[in-house]
Amino acid sequence: MNFALNSLPQREAKERNNGLTMVMDKGLSIREAEDFLSVSAQYVDLVKLGFGTSAFTPNLQEKINLYQNAGIKCYFGGTLFEAFVIRNQFDEYRRVLDQYGLNCAEVSDGSIEMNHQDKCNYIAELAKRGTVLSEVGSKDANVELPEDVWLSQMRNELNAGSWKVIAEARESGTVGIFQGSGQAKTSLIDGLLLQIGEENILWEAPMKSQQVWFINKLGTNVNLGNIAPNEVIPLECLRMGLRGDTFHSFITPQTTTAN
Amino acid sequence: MNFALNSLPQREAKERNNGLTMVMDKGLSIREAEDFLSVSAQYVDLVKLGFGTSAFTPNLQEKINLYQNAGIKCYFGGTLFEAFVIRNQFDEYRRVLDQYGLNCAEVSDGSIEMNHQDKCNYIAELAKRGTVLSEVGSKDANVELPEDVWLSQMRNELNAGSWKVIAEARESGTVGIFQGSGQAKTSLIDGLLLQIGEENILWEAPMKSQQVWFINKLGTNVNLGNIAPNEVIPLECLRMGLRGDTFHSFITPQTTTAN
Amino acid sequence: MNFALNSLPQREAKERNNGLTMVMDKGLSIREAEDFLSVSAQYVDLVKLGFGTSAFTPNLQEKINLYQNAGIKCYFGGTLFEAFVIRNQFDEYRRVLDQYGLNCAEVSDGSIEMNHQDKCNYIAELAKRGTVLSEVGSKDANVELPEDVWLSQMRNELNAGSWKVIAEARESGTVGIFQGSGQAKTSLIDGLLLQIGEENILWEAPMKSQQVWFINKLGTNVNLGNIAPNEVIPLECLRMGLRGDTFHSFITPQTTTAN
Repeated sequence: MNFALNSLPQREAKERNNGLTMVMDKGLSIREAEDFLSVSAQYVDLVKLGFGTSAFTPNLQEKINLYQNAGIKCYFGGTLFEAFVIRNQFDEYRRVLDQYGLNCAEVSDGSIEMNHQDKCNYIAELAKRGTVLSEVGSKDANVELPEDVWLSQMRNELNAGSWKVIAEARESGTVGIFQGSGQAKTSLIDGLLLQIGEENILWEAPMKSQQVWFINKLGTNVNLGNIAPNEVIPLECLRMGLRGDTFHSFITPQTTTAN
Repeated sequence: MNFALNSLPQREAKERNNGLTMVMDKGLSIREAEDFLSVSAQYVDLVKLGFGTSAFTPNLQEKINLYQNAGIKCYFGGTLFEAFVIRNQFDEYRRVLDQYGLNCAEVSDGSIEMNHQDKCNYIAELAKRGTVLSEVGSKDANVELPEDVWLSQMRNELNAGSWKVIAEARESGTVGIFQGSGQAKTSLIDGLLLQIGEENILWEAPMKSQQVWFINKLGTNVNLGNIAPNEVIPLECLRMGLRGDTFHSFITPQTTTAN
Repeated sequence: MNFALNSLPQREAKERNNGLTMVMDKGLSIREAEDFLSVSAQYVDLVKLGFGTSAFTPNLQEKINLYQNAGIKCYFGGTLFEAFVIRNQFDEYRRVLDQYGLNCAEVSDGSIEMNHQDKCNYIAELAKRGTVLSEVGSKDANVELPEDVWLSQMRNELNAGSWKVIAEARESGTVGIFQGSGQAKTSLIDGLLLQIGEENILWEAPMKSQQVWFINKLGTNVNLGNIAPNEVIPLECLRMGLRGDTFHSFITPQTTTAN
């Protein structure tokens, strides 16, 4: 914070358990990743190398090192995990994680059908070697998971060893916890909060309106994910009430006088 | 202009009073700002460090220097001014402007209720130390300012010392002079043009369709703002009739023959 | 491909005739172009300097050299060709192409009325000095070209010397082969495929949904254009079935078991 503004909300500092920001990198170059970190490193907890992009970018190892050295957990998008699993190559996937020195992994079943006990076994297996995030919710806009399925899956996955469960929304913000229009499924989200607990959930919220909605509902230190690299600073403004949309969320209006 | 094309519209050169382009920087790194300037410096008059972003970016002083040395006026977004004012910290705000050597400032009341005389006093106060831009219009889509309020506020603010008045549209282009759909409020804009004068207004117009609308209405050298850094060159094409949308705005169709 | 994934679709390697990716550069700086190439050069066949942007960017020669040295065909957007033609400056246009060492050119009539024989003459003339791409379809959303006009124009232009014909969609993806909503005109596209042949057409498809549609219809190695620089890696994921949207397009679901 460059300025001595009074009455700002209290922002958790890294390394933190609440107020997480997870960024999606869809193929940044090394220099672009450096640029991003030079501005935003202190505000970012997790970088996901989105879906299968890590398969195609050169200098993958160098980029992973860059993120890890900046105190950021770096991991492959869940779709890559699923691409290995559907080919019965989970052992190879674990080998890849070791090869690149990744101590964080995502387990998801957004694109494939997976027995839920199998999913929990994958979580338990990967939790032996590092942090696991697991994702709940389908990437298919036509698949509507009932609330009790969301609840039981999240509970089981946390029990199996997930650090946080991720509530699916995709890069677009139009599935999972959001409707096709991008509007939040309020009742579902309330259920998850009540039964699973805010501290255990990371909400994918790529649209500004979704970030605003969650910050107004859960405050400065809500866990948000699928943030674009160049939206981290604007998000920090939203969290701290220094953008129009949340300006009044953290400060009481008062009579002002010009001097 | 790299090519010897005939019959191009006349573009005002910097330092200019018309044809201004104002860019919104939402948190560029130093190297990203350098990249932006290496291509676009000659086309840009003003850079706004959008809303509260300047509170969070490291190397703020270095970036301000970079813009100023490129002959660009650099200033903090009005929301930051309002964040200081609502906390009764206007003196601190002035101190910050001095500290960073900013000779340009924005005065706005898009997020807070402010007595209009107070606003004019802030303008007069800041005009003693440099250029002032003041913004009219609410950031709230539900607030519809009547035309006569737009007119009297703009008039008073110019009298108080504003160099230009900014017609609000936000980064989204969906409030103020635009409807929620992004369409221009034609009658309001015509009133402002008639009563305030084109040379005194800078129009926020982040969407391409809005830029096209203003260029077709007011010509190459209309003052436009809230342009994304990587949209300055495309905007220059629109201004000069070298993009499909304004191709016919500046040249009469003629019979062409292949040789 | 960084990982040893089994059963991936076969991707044509450069220099290739199918599976082309054409990127639109709207004014990148040298360093941004280098960043882009450092990640994506091996996946990109063509870079279009979009509409008139090449008229305004400094270091144009350096950027063209950069792309050409990376094994990428670089050319000016068709709107620039039209801007010279409407001014009766085609000779000057040819001189500019020579000056910058461009061995690839686009011929289009998206913004001007042009006798079709004249267009074919321009194609034949420019084909003497290098590769020609010619574009069919209007940039005007209100102009609906009948299918037989699309067919005869494409045929004539290929006969006149075009390497590929480009099916117009603009940067927005809302005209030409797409409806205003961005949805594909299926029947028109089927007609073009049947009569002109997939290998002769490059489809402008800037939206992800459009890329998905074409990949699901025509496979990994469909020719796609107007891709944003930072969307090349995500597109490669779509082509290879490593993103949710095409995950099942190239692999048969199977029973998976956790170990």
